[in-house]
Amino acid sequence: MQKLHSYVMGNWYYGKNKPRVTSSALTNEGLYELDSSGIDNAAMLEYGRKKGSKALASMTFLERGNMLKEVAKYILAHKEELYALSAQTGATRVDSWVDIEGGAATFFNNSGLANRELPNETIWAEDDLIPLSKSGSFAARHILTSKPGVAIHINAYNFPCWGMLEKLAPTWLGGMAAIIKPGSESAFLTQAMVKMIVESGLVPEGAIQVVCGSVGNLLDCVDYQDVVTFTGSAKTGHMLRATDNLIKKSIPFTMEVDSINCAVLGDDVTIDSPEFKLFVKEVCREMTIKAGQKCTAIRRAMVPSHLLSEARDAIKIRLERIVVGDPSIKDVTMGPLISQSQLDDVKEKVALLSHDCEIVTGGDMLNFTPQGSENGAYFPPTLLVCNEPQASTTIHDVEAFGPVCTLMPYQDRDSLTELIALGKGSLVGSLVTASGSFASEMVSRIGHLHGRLHILNAESSKESTGHGSPLPMLIHGGPGRAGGGEEMGGLRGIKHYMQRTAIQGSPTMIASVGKEWVRGAQTTTDLVHPFKKYFENIAVGESLKTARRTITETDIVNFACLSGDHFYAHMDDIAAKESMFGQRVAHGYFIISAAAGLFVEAAPGPVLANYGMESLRFVEAVAIGDTIQVVLTCQKKTKKRQKLEEDTPQGVVAWDVEVTNQHGNPVALYTILTLVAREKGDF
Amino acid sequence: MQKLHSYVMGNWYYGKNKPRVTSSALTNEGLYELDSSGIDNAAMLEYGRKKGSKALASMTFLERGNMLKEVAKYILAHKEELYALSAQTGATRVDSWVDIEGGAATFFNNSGLANRELPNETIWAEDDLIPLSKSGSFAARHILTSKPGVAIHINAYNFPCWGMLEKLAPTWLGGMAAIIKPGSESAFLTQAMVKMIVESGLVPEGAIQVVCGSVGNLLDCVDYQDVVTFTGSAKTGHMLRATDNLIKKSIPFTMEVDSINCAVLGDDVTIDSPEFKLFVKEVCREMTIKAGQKCTAIRRAMVPSHLLSEARDAIKIRLERIVVGDPSIKDVTMGPLISQSQLDDVKEKVALLSHDCEIVTGGDMLNFTPQGSENGAYFPPTLLVCNEPQASTTIHDVEAFGPVCTLMPYQDRDSLTELIALGKGSLVGSLVTASGSFASEMVSRIGHLHGRLHILNAESSKESTGHGSPLPMLIHGGPGRAGGGEEMGGLRGIKHYMQRTAIQGSPTMIASVGKEWVRGAQTTTDLVHPFKKYFENIAVGESLKTARRTITETDIVNFACLSGDHFYAHMDDIAAKESMFGQRVAHGYFIISAAAGLFVEAAPGPVLANYGMESLRFVEAVAIGDTIQVVLTCQKKTKKRQKLEEDTPQGVVAWDVEVTNQHGNPVALYTILTLVAREKGDF
Repeated sequence: MQKLHSYVMGNWYYGKNKPRVTSSALTNEGLYELDSSGIDNAAMLEYGRKKGSKALASMTFLERGNMLKEVAKYILAHKEELYALSAQTGATRVDSWVDIEGGAATFFNNSGLANRELPNETIWAEDDLIPLSKSGSFAARHILTSKPGVAIHINAYNFPCWGMLEKLAPTWLGGMAAIIKPGSESAFLTQAMVKMIVESGLVPEGAIQVVCGSVGNLLDCVDYQDVVTFTGSAKTGHMLRATDNLIKKSIPFTMEVDSINCAVLGDDVTIDSPEFKLFVKEVCREMTIKAGQKCTAIRRAMVPSHLLSEARDAIKIRLERIVVGDPSIKDVTMGPLISQSQLDDVKEKVALLSHDCEIVTGGDMLNFTPQGSENGAYFPPTLLVCNEPQASTTIHDVEAFGPVCTLMPYQDRDSLTELIALGKGSLVGSLVTASGSFASEMVSRIGHLHGRLHILNAESSKESTGHGSPLPMLIHGGPGRAGGGEEMGGLRGIKHYMQRTAIQGSPTMIASVGKEWVRGAQTTTDLVHPFKKYFENIAVGESLKTARRTITETDIVNFACLSGDHFYAHMDDIAAKESMFGQRVAHGYFIISAAAGLFVEAAPGPVLANYGMESLRFVEAVAIGDTIQVVLTCQKKTKKRQKLEEDTPQGVVAWDVEVTNQHGNPVALYTILTLVAREKGDF
Repeated sequence: MQKLHSYVMGNWYYGKNKPRVTSSALTNEGLYELDSSGIDNAAMLEYGRKKGSKALASMTFLERGNMLKEVAKYILAHKEELYALSAQTGATRVDSWVDIEGGAATFFNNSGLANRELPNETIWAEDDLIPLSKSGSFAARHILTSKPGVAIHINAYNFPCWGMLEKLAPTWLGGMAAIIKPGSESAFLTQAMVKMIVESGLVPEGAIQVVCGSVGNLLDCVDYQDVVTFTGSAKTGHMLRATDNLIKKSIPFTMEVDSINCAVLGDDVTIDSPEFKLFVKEVCREMTIKAGQKCTAIRRAMVPSHLLSEARDAIKIRLERIVVGDPSIKDVTMGPLISQSQLDDVKEKVALLSHDCEIVTGGDMLNFTPQGSENGAYFPPTLLVCNEPQASTTIHDVEAFGPVCTLMPYQDRDSLTELIALGKGSLVGSLVTASGSFASEMVSRIGHLHGRLHILNAESSKESTGHGSPLPMLIHGGPGRAGGGEEMGGLRGIKHYMQRTAIQGSPTMIASVGKEWVRGAQTTTDLVHPFKKYFENIAVGESLKTARRTITETDIVNFACLSGDHFYAHMDDIAAKESMFGQRVAHGYFIISAAAGLFVEAAPGPVLANYGMESLRFVEAVAIGDTIQVVLTCQKKTKKRQKLEEDTPQGVVAWDVEVTNQHGNPVALYTILTLVAREKGDF
């Protein structure tokens, strides 16, 4: 048997006590010994904070994002080593793909997010300036800064790779180091991936540590700037959440536990609708991927009562085509459970469920001949039917964490809503329906019970990622039984590892702190036109005040003729006088066009293109004879990742534009986005 | 003595056990008896859910916002009754103003937020469409729905009005009913305000209940869709958070507790800087408002060591001008503490602090002659100085919840950072400095320790709302010792009372669910031009496809001459060929102007104005000879509150605009915002 070392304070460590032994899902032979006893948890935490978090927090978001991308590329380049180990967990190739490549995908996705949305800074100015005073000398803004703590991620056995990576990506983007505690049964795969990441040399020392075995008193040692997450069983989760030290220090604890997720066949669906087949297929798929060992799997399938027997038969037929066995054997489509003890647990739970249900297929080991060693932890796909689901608590409370699902009828939308609510909170639910009104009504009824709702119909089925797949840009987690946590969700996920602070002060102070110019803050000027400068040489807060231009009746007529926009407020003296404007006024689009005419540099230069505009507001109308002037100010700069060496190195510069009239009143306010060449590349 | 009734299930209730007696802050005479024993907590919760929350959740956000505004107006119309009661807590008129009118202001602010930012629907589509597939048939969006539970707000005695209202506003906007448990010492004022709100008839039955006395087993009865918040002492908060039922059901628990907040005088400040005086004034103000009984009060004042004696002297002089006594007596500027037991507690804590400090002024009752009854809970403004603050744990850990503050020196920014961190997390800190670089560096060092940082300098001082004032648009709460909670913060605050759900499906499904059209969803068409329709008659998803227009060289030249924008990509054949465009292309602003020319209706009609634009992206350049066409689709409608009867009733309609070329490729994508008249007002 192999000893599974922990990675602690830069060294591979193994304890001296009696180890925990984990066995092969396929043969039940002992494979690995785990012993983490003797780790100095306080020292491990301090190492993570002082080495890893310090290094990560000193990198910009863009640098952290680049790191994620490089790590993901490294993992993919070495993925076959991981696939080989993953097979020992009983996973099929598809199961492993979800775990390994799905995990790498969360890194790529988060990396792209950083490149698109986050600044090349260590401080994240979260929202816009919030005015707090009449004359504008006092305002506020929310910013996010890195916590100088460590994130402790206690993970489940079923996704040894994805489960670590989906949490690591936002943790690292937030500037925090992590300590990973994988589920023991598949810790060897997580550990191999950690080893790979460490060996890549791509991440700072201390950014990742892994504990194979028990965490001991780790949660008693964490401090207020640390974060703890847990994925696994409710029982363990509740025990950890109640840790005195976490309660007393108000340490964030995010929990994601198994829930009794539902899939609903809409009341609009008939036996001939394509949605009927989609429902059957989705239920079977969710039951058998990872042998049903997914916290998002469908456990309760609900169908209109008149379709119960048809649904039962169709699911039964499909399930009976599944070939269970050792995935290395040809034609096998579903592997074993992770361990014999998991198998025993599933048997016990099925026995419980069968008190209130009839077993339609599977359910016991009789007439079940899996392909492979007789000691593998195999269990047949098992469908139960509960005819009186309102009368049972078991089917809404007990989860058999394997290829097991209960089918049940519903009478109408009220009773359907009640049935779903009996699950007391879920990670995900599916509505299989072609009816927008069914979907809309049910979402308003059961939204509060779910972290994610997947609406499946013929239109979306070809591209749907399915009921069971959490995605990095969507939140993952759910209320009540599901643990009340929230992970991922795009930028939201990163914020769980940072502290939000409301900064109040003068606009100039807020600009200094947030590293972005805000309206009302001091500006600087330069003799050189800002559009003649390379990205590197433009200063945030640098401002240009243009010449003035008087807007004439001729302008308005010419613009109407050229654009084709003859709106009465511009062209009809009678109607304009009766309108809210009281007179003919210039086209708003003419004002922003004339503004560009005042600030654009005609000759070729570093400004490559104006590719967009944000938050345009026409504040006051411009009448004939009014004179406009423009102030253009560099609001923020975002360096772009250079994809290929031959690409022009670029950055995005956002310019605040204020167009005023002869009274100094703003007439139009907006932000324009320009692509600006960098003087030097850094490929 | 008056019996203080609770308001439970629509009735005023008083128990039959031995009451708790609260006494006057001014005279120590018994004033009120509180006894909530015998309340059926499970029934009270169910009443709140089934009556209050159900009614609130069926109202739209706009209706809920209107309700807040009307309630706030009602409170202000009856405010003198509240001022009279508030005086019994020992509050000065200014103290009461903060509590009563500051509380009403949170209602007005949240009401305005709903009117500006939230839909006239019960579902809140939170962010934009998230594409999840290549051909666009599968996408997602995050929505928020109301939780059908109750919010239990356990509040502190120091802000009997504001403390309730700042939590009620987002609770009600989220569609949830509330049960309020005020701090016993000032429960009579909270109860009077609840009575006022109930009597106004402006809120649905069950939307508010109040428990005067103990909550008994209330937290054992809450369920997973409920929410609990706590403001008060850390000890009580930790005990409540550890309630088994909250842990097991993953019930959100938000905690905000007293912290040892700091104010820092910047290392740039000299004795002659205006910031020196501002610092002294702010410290004294925070020590004495509400007699220092504020969770945000400054407890630790930190100054560069060379300014210690000057700061000490200046604060001392200012504090000694404070007249302590019964606020009904003329010239009194600071009232008593809430009770004798609070007074005893403060005395005890000052004694503890004085082990590590020298008392500069105040500190004991000798030479202290408050104006008023000798039994009032008066305590003098007390400044302590700690010369070796790094060596003390007491000054960073022990809070005297009264007019007490410790002044201490710091050597440099490193030691300042350490000192601040010894507080282990705070609600708020102040940086009094004229230096942007000091502020910026310190925010990056101590941001993670604070929920709010207030930067004060001469520029912002006239309009600053001060260190101690949480504002409805900013988050309130802090990490670690401060409880780890977050309240308010504009829209964020409302989300704490709703469930976020990621909805996945076809764009058409997502449009149905989110009540807003999204790109890729089905559209409808009508023979009538949408700009000829009143607000009520425009359907979300209604679409107009315009005629086409070929963009010619003449157009480009005319537009350049009219706008003054002669950028080389439009006007210089040589440079344009060498550019990323490869040829001369049309001005982006001309494309959006021509697009308007294609869809605008010239004649007067319900569309009153185009007042803005969002998220414009020029996706592809338009070359000479290209032909454009526009599809305009109603994306969402937001009814606007009609302020005066004589105003034109209006709504905002956001139109998605897609400009395509002859290949069907998009060249420009954006949203325009129009003001559209409503056919019928509803003032």
